[in-house]
Amino acid sequence: MVGFESYVVVHNIAKRHNVGTLARSATAFGVTELILVGRRDFNAFGSHGSASHVRFRHFHSLIEARNYLKDEKDCDICGVEIADGASAVNEHPFKRSTAFLLGNEGSGLSAKEYEICDFFVYIPQYGCGTASLNVTVAASIVLHHFGVWAGFSERVRDGSKFIVADKPSRQGKRNICAGTEESIVEERKLRKENAENGFFDEDGNGNSSESSSELLNGLFLNE
Amino acid sequence: MVGFESYVVVHNIAKRHNVGTLARSATAFGVTELILVGRRDFNAFGSHGSASHVRFRHFHSLIEARNYLKDEKDCDICGVEIADGASAVNEHPFKRSTAFLLGNEGSGLSAKEYEICDFFVYIPQYGCGTASLNVTVAASIVLHHFGVWAGFSERVRDGSKFIVADKPSRQGKRNICAGTEESIVEERKLRKENAENGFFDEDGNGNSSESSSELLNGLFLNE
Repeated sequence: MVGFESYVVVHNIAKRHNVGTLARSATAFGVTELILVGRRDFNAFGSHGSASHVRFRHFHSLIEARNYLKDEKDCDICGVEIADGASAVNEHPFKRSTAFLLGNEGSGLSAKEYEICDFFVYIPQYGCGTASLNVTVAASIVLHHFGVWAGFSERVRDGSKFIVADKPSRQGKRNICAGTEESIVEERKLRKENAENGFFDEDGNGNSSESSSELLNGLFLNE
Repeated sequence: MVGFESYVVVHNIAKRHNVGTLARSATAFGVTELILVGRRDFNAFGSHGSASHVRFRHFHSLIEARNYLKDEKDCDICGVEIADGASAVNEHPFKRSTAFLLGNEGSGLSAKEYEICDFFVYIPQYGCGTASLNVTVAASIVLHHFGVWAGFSERVRDGSKFIVADKPSRQGKRNICAGTEESIVEERKLRKENAENGFFDEDGNGNSSESSSELLNGLFLNE
């Protein structure tokens, strides 16, 4: 089972904070691209810290995102929602590369979002009480399970920390983290692509704004 | 496998925000008690929203918490940490009722925290990049897996929402959510106990402060 990829589609997530934590989880779980649909005011997420390891992509409309994922990436689109006929995520109802569509924090998936989904997963809940998990928590559990199902290679651990490359590299074709020259070239390519998509600060290297740097450190490192 | 319980031990979690999201996940995954060790300034978490479904308990020291969990609850204590010899959480290395000890957001488990753990679990990571997940995300994934392993009964779903009882009740001995008079009595008992532990607002029903109410709504409902 080598070669499967995961994508996350973020549409109408209201809280920037949630996008930050989501990017952190997406990085940890080897997500190929974080796809932002609609509003473009997410470009504080630049090249700092863990964000640089996730490729951001932007579409103006949901249907453009759908077409990209279906036509170019041959993905299933999986809604993360307690829908009729939804499968428990721990049953691993996956078949191929999959894009996970997250509902808004308050209202869940809209009718239009439902329409583009091939299937749905939900996270079983056991207690009495709150009727929904935090959107980032839900997404993280789903991404974790997809990685287990897809047989992604685990990141190398050293003592109590996962090793982070000095020169961060994209997850390779075979899910190997390399620190080679090749990976540095790949990283530069990713940064350039993200910059073209408008997800870097204006100078393309994330150094233009100390406050944006601090924001990202806050989001990704200390939380 | 009926009758296992899960506990969460929170020691030195720096961000109140994380405790709020954690309480929400603990509720969703049928956690019996959320145990706060050390600082007592968490009592904004009262009877509102989902928080009322989780029992809070407080100890001044880690060793008191350990003794309670080992002597009174016969729990294993499981550190959530990328430690030597740690098991991947999806391998379900559980044996009995388990208390999960979370490390601080920045530094992870301290030496004293390590000492009281019977074993450790970690969450496999796949990409290159950030070396740690958000503490609440990590805890939620672990609690989810414990519930799957323990065979907790799933909450009843109705369409796209889990049903929340009008009069919220504690998870019963057999993990059944009942809306009976008995459960209301149980709920009142829980509220009284939480109040005695100082986790309610002063009047014991959470209605004393509109701002605390709004804070909790923000933490639990909209995120």
